[in-house]
Amino acid sequence: MAESTLIDHLIQSFRCLPGVGPKSAQRMVYYLLERDREGGRALAEALRQTMDGVGNCRLCRTLTESELCDLCADEKRDSSLLCVVETPANVAAIQKSTDYNGKFFVLLGHLSPLDGIGPKDLGIDLLEQRLDSGEIQEVILATGSTVEGETTAHYIAEIARERGISVSRIALGIPLGGDLEFVDGGTLAHAIHGRGKY
Amino acid sequence: MAESTLIDHLIQSFRCLPGVGPKSAQRMVYYLLERDREGGRALAEALRQTMDGVGNCRLCRTLTESELCDLCADEKRDSSLLCVVETPANVAAIQKSTDYNGKFFVLLGHLSPLDGIGPKDLGIDLLEQRLDSGEIQEVILATGSTVEGETTAHYIAEIARERGISVSRIALGIPLGGDLEFVDGGTLAHAIHGRGKY
Repeated sequence: MAESTLIDHLIQSFRCLPGVGPKSAQRMVYYLLERDREGGRALAEALRQTMDGVGNCRLCRTLTESELCDLCADEKRDSSLLCVVETPANVAAIQKSTDYNGKFFVLLGHLSPLDGIGPKDLGIDLLEQRLDSGEIQEVILATGSTVEGETTAHYIAEIARERGISVSRIALGIPLGGDLEFVDGGTLAHAIHGRGKY
Repeated sequence: MAESTLIDHLIQSFRCLPGVGPKSAQRMVYYLLERDREGGRALAEALRQTMDGVGNCRLCRTLTESELCDLCADEKRDSSLLCVVETPANVAAIQKSTDYNGKFFVLLGHLSPLDGIGPKDLGIDLLEQRLDSGEIQEVILATGSTVEGETTAHYIAEIARERGISVSRIALGIPLGGDLEFVDGGTLAHAIHGRGKY
């Protein structure tokens, strides 16, 4: 092979990224070497700092470089609402697109017995402590509408109800701009079932 | 925003990669932080080493971490054949898929007056030295079949012919497994024109 071992090794290293196969890894490496070494160096430094410097918020488990994330530290947010999501990216998505102004709890996954992911891995003990504090009045279940997401939502709903805390689930229905012709049957059934007054 | 500045900065840094937009950059960062910090650290280290450690071969200009690349250093390869390509990735592709056993010369681009890329940027002086050495008997033009690639091939062909060196161009035709129905007209015209005995 004409390639140096450093180049081969970097191509291999890029393959740890999601959605990056051998072809795009090669393309990235050659691109950086031929046109943007400064960008490559900056990426290396940012990666190093972030992999070492980012941990989990001790209250909500989202990713943060402080002990407490910005949202948990923000006293202006409504502490009586707790929105439970699967990932930090879900927090970012809800923050970006909605006017939700309560707190979050991040499971960092969903219940999946086949993969060996149980309540402990999702920080359910931490969530129970939070619910026991007496501050929370409503738990909003914002896990995905997959089988695992629904199972997880069901499990957490039980925990909250045991404590007399009201529980809601984000709405299932047709997406904005969705043509009924292209919406799957399950979604449509949920949309009809969950119809609201107009 | 719930995101820490380190995370935001890393998402931005990933965007220097070709084909990586804001969504996939975010996905990569969360993936590494949630599931593969070791991979992220290894990638950072490989990037740093490669950006600093890889230079160009002093003979053929391909990317290498030594002064001379493996192919230029390999005395078993036929030094009378010189295949001229645009990029180091082209060298790798030819090495991987063909039995070509001569030497290479890498232009690191193609003539493109509008982008200010002239003969100097393509190392044509180095190529001329190589042709003047008297070792080369055939120059194989393996630049792309784009307008710029053809212009570059034409330009190099002139330089080689001035020195009495024979020049060939890689064949243009329908790709392997190509259905004539889906081949563009220009390619088809070249394929008919360049037909060989069967």
